Amino acid sequence: MASFAKSWIAISASAVFLWFAFLASAPFLRHVDSYLDFLASTREIPEITPFQAPYKNVWADLNQQEADALLEFLFESPELNLTEASNATSRDNTLMQLGVLQPNKTDILCYLNGSAGVPERWAHVVVAQGVTKDACIVNYMLGPLPPNALTEIRPLKYIFNSGRNHVTNPVPNQEDLLMWIIGELQGVSDITQKILGTDVFASPDGLDIRTGAAYIGNGTFATWVQFYRQDSSSDAGWLLPQGLYFKLQTVTRDPANWKMSQWYYNGLVYDSAAELREALKRPGFLLNPLNLNGPWTDTEDFREGPPGRELPPPTMIQPSGPRFKIDHQQNFISWMGFEFFISTSQERGLSLHNIKFDGDTVIFEVGLQEALAHYAGDDPAQGALAFMDTLGNMGIYMRNLVPGYDCPAYATYLSASYHNGGASITRKNSICVFEYAADHALRRHTSDEHVSISRNTYLVVRSVSTMGNYDFTIEYIFYLDGTIEVKLRASGFIWAAFHTPTSESAKRNEYGYRVHEALATSMHDHVLNFKADLDVAGTSNTFVRVGIEPATVEYPWDEETTTPRNTMHLVEHAVEKEAGINWPANSGEMYIVMNDNSTNSWGKKRGYRITPGTGMGTPSHLSILNSTALRKSAEWAYKDLWLVKQKDTEPRSAEPLNYYVPRDPLVDFGKFVDDEEVVDEDLVIYFNLGSHHIPHSGDIPNTLMHTSASSVMFTPFNFHDRDASRRRVQGVKLEFGDEGTQARYFGGRHLEGVHLKAVSRPTDLEPDLLEYDTERQLGRNMSWIYNLIPRGN
Amino acid sequence: MASFAKSWIAISASAVFLWFAFLASAPFLRHVDSYLDFLASTREIPEITPFQAPYKNVWADLNQQEADALLEFLFESPELNLTEASNATSRDNTLMQLGVLQPNKTDILCYLNGSAGVPERWAHVVVAQGVTKDACIVNYMLGPLPPNALTEIRPLKYIFNSGRNHVTNPVPNQEDLLMWIIGELQGVSDITQKILGTDVFASPDGLDIRTGAAYIGNGTFATWVQFYRQDSSSDAGWLLPQGLYFKLQTVTRDPANWKMSQWYYNGLVYDSAAELREALKRPGFLLNPLNLNGPWTDTEDFREGPPGRELPPPTMIQPSGPRFKIDHQQNFISWMGFEFFISTSQERGLSLHNIKFDGDTVIFEVGLQEALAHYAGDDPAQGALAFMDTLGNMGIYMRNLVPGYDCPAYATYLSASYHNGGASITRKNSICVFEYAADHALRRHTSDEHVSISRNTYLVVRSVSTMGNYDFTIEYIFYLDGTIEVKLRASGFIWAAFHTPTSESAKRNEYGYRVHEALATSMHDHVLNFKADLDVAGTSNTFVRVGIEPATVEYPWDEETTTPRNTMHLVEHAVEKEAGINWPANSGEMYIVMNDNSTNSWGKKRGYRITPGTGMGTPSHLSILNSTALRKSAEWAYKDLWLVKQKDTEPRSAEPLNYYVPRDPLVDFGKFVDDEEVVDEDLVIYFNLGSHHIPHSGDIPNTLMHTSASSVMFTPFNFHDRDASRRRVQGVKLEFGDEGTQARYFGGRHLEGVHLKAVSRPTDLEPDLLEYDTERQLGRNMSWIYNLIPRGN
Repeated sequence: MASFAKSWIAISASAVFLWFAFLASAPFLRHVDSYLDFLASTREIPEITPFQAPYKNVWADLNQQEADALLEFLFESPELNLTEASNATSRDNTLMQLGVLQPNKTDILCYLNGSAGVPERWAHVVVAQGVTKDACIVNYMLGPLPPNALTEIRPLKYIFNSGRNHVTNPVPNQEDLLMWIIGELQGVSDITQKILGTDVFASPDGLDIRTGAAYIGNGTFATWVQFYRQDSSSDAGWLLPQGLYFKLQTVTRDPANWKMSQWYYNGLVYDSAAELREALKRPGFLLNPLNLNGPWTDTEDFREGPPGRELPPPTMIQPSGPRFKIDHQQNFISWMGFEFFISTSQERGLSLHNIKFDGDTVIFEVGLQEALAHYAGDDPAQGALAFMDTLGNMGIYMRNLVPGYDCPAYATYLSASYHNGGASITRKNSICVFEYAADHALRRHTSDEHVSISRNTYLVVRSVSTMGNYDFTIEYIFYLDGTIEVKLRASGFIWAAFHTPTSESAKRNEYGYRVHEALATSMHDHVLNFKADLDVAGTSNTFVRVGIEPATVEYPWDEETTTPRNTMHLVEHAVEKEAGINWPANSGEMYIVMNDNSTNSWGKKRGYRITPGTGMGTPSHLSILNSTALRKSAEWAYKDLWLVKQKDTEPRSAEPLNYYVPRDPLVDFGKFVDDEEVVDEDLVIYFNLGSHHIPHSGDIPNTLMHTSASSVMFTPFNFHDRDASRRRVQGVKLEFGDEGTQARYFGGRHLEGVHLKAVSRPTDLEPDLLEYDTERQLGRNMSWIYNLIPRGN
Repeated sequence: MASFAKSWIAISASAVFLWFAFLASAPFLRHVDSYLDFLASTREIPEITPFQAPYKNVWADLNQQEADALLEFLFESPELNLTEASNATSRDNTLMQLGVLQPNKTDILCYLNGSAGVPERWAHVVVAQGVTKDACIVNYMLGPLPPNALTEIRPLKYIFNSGRNHVTNPVPNQEDLLMWIIGELQGVSDITQKILGTDVFASPDGLDIRTGAAYIGNGTFATWVQFYRQDSSSDAGWLLPQGLYFKLQTVTRDPANWKMSQWYYNGLVYDSAAELREALKRPGFLLNPLNLNGPWTDTEDFREGPPGRELPPPTMIQPSGPRFKIDHQQNFISWMGFEFFISTSQERGLSLHNIKFDGDTVIFEVGLQEALAHYAGDDPAQGALAFMDTLGNMGIYMRNLVPGYDCPAYATYLSASYHNGGASITRKNSICVFEYAADHALRRHTSDEHVSISRNTYLVVRSVSTMGNYDFTIEYIFYLDGTIEVKLRASGFIWAAFHTPTSESAKRNEYGYRVHEALATSMHDHVLNFKADLDVAGTSNTFVRVGIEPATVEYPWDEETTTPRNTMHLVEHAVEKEAGINWPANSGEMYIVMNDNSTNSWGKKRGYRITPGTGMGTPSHLSILNSTALRKSAEWAYKDLWLVKQKDTEPRSAEPLNYYVPRDPLVDFGKFVDDEEVVDEDLVIYFNLGSHHIPHSGDIPNTLMHTSASSVMFTPFNFHDRDASRRRVQGVKLEFGDEGTQARYFGGRHLEGVHLKAVSRPTDLEPDLLEYDTERQLGRNMSWIYNLIPRGN
């Protein structure tokens, strides 16, 4: 059984997305949880100056005390009839997830404006219900907390526009299913031995099985399962599909109705293992090359590189400590006029709340809603693959960050705790906060007499969710002028396809490119949906489109042109009803959320512009039209951004359990956009990040992050009277002096040589790099600056 | 006359684009040259290890010896009949510019492949011809160099598809014109006093005049000139338009045919000063508010800012010197497998040549061709404004960079020399080269057993051209995987408009937004054209479009779906003929330059993908259709990128003197794209960077660079067998250990706590930030790492 166990651990760890959700309700939690908490011995951050948030963090997930008390309450509830996970079978009710049910915005606004007290705390409880005939996953709301005489448990429905609080659980008895599959696989070892030269019971170089694509009906479940080579040394198993697939079908919870039905190899479907076995006996049965592991999947290559690799590279340092403040109790951060709260959710990871700049509200909430990866291909695995990663718990898989690599060594690292499957999981150092200096200035100008330059430093709040093969880095960046950026980067292993040499579509690179002996890349769209509840100087806002349009105009002063002038102009109009909107061709429109009732000193409506940021070009939406895999479960994926009216009943565009009910999702985003008026209303923008990812040889072994970024920015637009960064930036203004080296001339004339002298800088403490460099003087208390001495090259 | 002089210096320095070209041929050069060479006392770079380029830099501009010898030769030439600038009038022939005429690519390739010697050196000479009836600007080629018996002077025509080597000089006698205007302005002081409360002769707060928009016919010239408030303390004059304009018209060089004709104020055209004077006497003449200077135009604000402003921010250091090498003689740079040459041109600034990666050719030439700024507005100044900045010499205005602000203090700074107007100008420290560490990793992955992360360091080659009001930062960035990025950022002062309160278009924000009492922004398109002569693994290349398209397909394995599946696929086709191409909607196509005759180990054609990079969204092209201001002088501005066949007769898409002959330009790019076959040919891509710039209050006082970037990237696509960065990157791989702090649990169960230990790193020298942070051990020889100790917050 040792080899069985090994094999099954591999399955449970790798068939991530679909299986994770099952695991959460089963004792297999042990394997999932063994992913936990590294860097456990990291430093404690000393609180030198206590810093306190002005409000309570009403968005915070349940703390340990709340969870402990709640757990006791839950297990005493006859209504829920819960069994401890360690004693439970799939015929019991078990606790899947426990998290905060964030208060309604309406209530929070009353708290923030002082018209009401702190909103009640409620919990969101997810139960795997096994005692009923049809197994379900059921959502409850429970509150107020802490549990007391008034505390009640109610079906949680008001945030699901389906009107339901539950979905059918397509594979409730996962342990049984796993054991059943093991049994079946024993009977087909001869097939895998003949085609792949090994089987799932070999160790350490046997086979795994993985799946991601499921066809879920009412109580039925089907999936094509692919064999993979095991990888005993790293995580390269993702790159080792074997091109042999079988279909698994279950109807009801009764194993008598389960079957391993069809097989697929080399472009052909076989209706049973027996049929494939027969085919194998025929002469001329075509066997494909094997996709075997080797140094090509290694993420490290220690062979000698070009000169310079052996030297330490440049490194960012922070000589005087952070310039931001954190209230660690409330997860409240303040930097250069920005203020905001952080919360974490086990499904969706990090969100930011009540972002203010110089006291003005800008964004009430911004955070990930769902992460879709939609594949295409001509084989049964890639061809039906679509992941929605909140089901795999993107918060829980916000793994510990590595100081000096994921974020600067000097960053402040925050931890987050989650309550899942009856246990608490603390992800130490899973969020980093740091200030960084861009490689370029924020602004500059050289005039006749001066040169003036401002530094571009910015604040980053970052987390990385590793969802099986992929590592999603999600970050929020704050700039000195009031700009806020939301940025996504993807790395990790691609979910690759077996390369079938005889495939016609492989020959024309229809779904990707061959990248190793028997491996092909697999095209896929990443579409990650974010909510941005903008409150630009208040909650009454209007979304304005400003077109940059060609125009032909006759001007009274324009006599020299004999015909009307071809020029351009701005055409402004408010979007009056809820709508899905794409980024414009040729960047030919600005999208600005304006406050009609708040103007700057020059009479212009204060606004924040929403614009593609510093990712690779413009973020994209889903290429596929009316996806068969998704049905109605992710309607937000079809446009770049969406404008809807804020409602307490529509707090999120997506719901993890949608994955199980694609035809009738718990939250159907399509219904959010229903023609309501949105002028001078409380607006919510849902926008997508992501890209069309067509991996090529450069994605082996891992996708690179410098070319995988996508971003949306929120930039102040007529929000202030002038550039707000002037009040918080550092920089220098230098005067052209009249000393220094003479310029070299020719043609017999002399010109004045000039040199620079500093005429101003914001503070005496600022490291005087310039003086040091030009005049060989060191700024005081800046001994570290010695390290700036460049060496020859 | 002192105030006259003051006023005229302001004119010459500020009415930059149009006037600069005039100045280059006149004694006013003194004013232009007073912009020169600061930071003259910067360090010398010690050459520790001599490093030599494998070839001569055949693209290099003329060196001092060449220029000195050439100058002697030129002034002895009876054909050119040159007069020294100091003695010349506009009726003489004077030398405008002297630069290298770069060898034809055909000849360079023979040199690089060893089939021929170093190509001959030739010069490109531009002469302001004043002795003829119609004044002209004339291009000559002169070579071979150094001057000898075989050296000849020929009309330079072969690189101009007009077939001409000259343009009519619309304002040859600029000095006369300036004196004439001064005379005229004396006669209208009463008008400016009444409307603006001062005149051009007041000091220090009098008026300047500036212009940018010209209507140029055959020997005729007209422009609307606007009054500006002088700015005696900084460069804020750009923000001080006064809303009063007059039209200047010249026909022939005879002042008798010159006139100050119409006037414009408050939306009305007056046919003469007298007419405006009469109108002013009428009761009820509406006077606009004045646009006056004040602290609002200051680029520095030293008032107290938010907490933290007083602390030094994070700073990049380079503890062990640069990891790149430079051959300073040949301007040849080598970093991590990349090799390339640099050249500078006085008109176009920096270009890079023969960029190779691991020995393979990638880009033969990349560099700026032209920088267009096209405005729109309803007043006579903004309404006709279109600058093409190479006429103002973007190389010469590559000003000295400020260490620690424009580029890191540790950067290597290079200088460039130009030969203009008979003088040599050296721009010290006008190019910087440095490596930087991104704030994020290049790749990462967390698996069951390991976490592995690679550093993202990159090399930047940067220059800044300050063209009057605007500072254009142009840079070339090299990444460890072979990616090359071309990035533009704009900063400096906007060219703003006077805000006329009664203007209907101002009321509807038709061309911009009011941003101060009497100032409005002015919408404009920046379109900067770059040449990228790609030679992907050789010169025989094909441009392939790969569409990411929705598809409906029936798969044999897809029984569970009862209808054909809605999915997507790739559709690949080569572009067969020269074409202009836009970036696709929804990023729905990849553009890849492939080599049909070179495949990687997996049989895939090696290519480089051309893609929008990390600027703000996707770079844009000109919004205006068939621009009246541009006529045919900038046909490259109408599409995002262009694919043409390389020809020695088409080395550049643009020509500075096009500005003077918009209807019949010297180089008409429109003719480049003439239906030639481009499959398996030597291809050249011309692409545009830039943006639609609709400034708002946040652009006052200066445009910010973090939101003004645009970029195009060239990324390897199936170019190598796997990710090329693996051989040159640094990083760590860490193993999950089984010691460390226990995770905290709830629900009665325990999980294993884990901690990280480093199992590998590329070199012993690598700063072991991780160990330091997690285990409180310092890497050896890394005492500077002490500074990484974070302080509390």
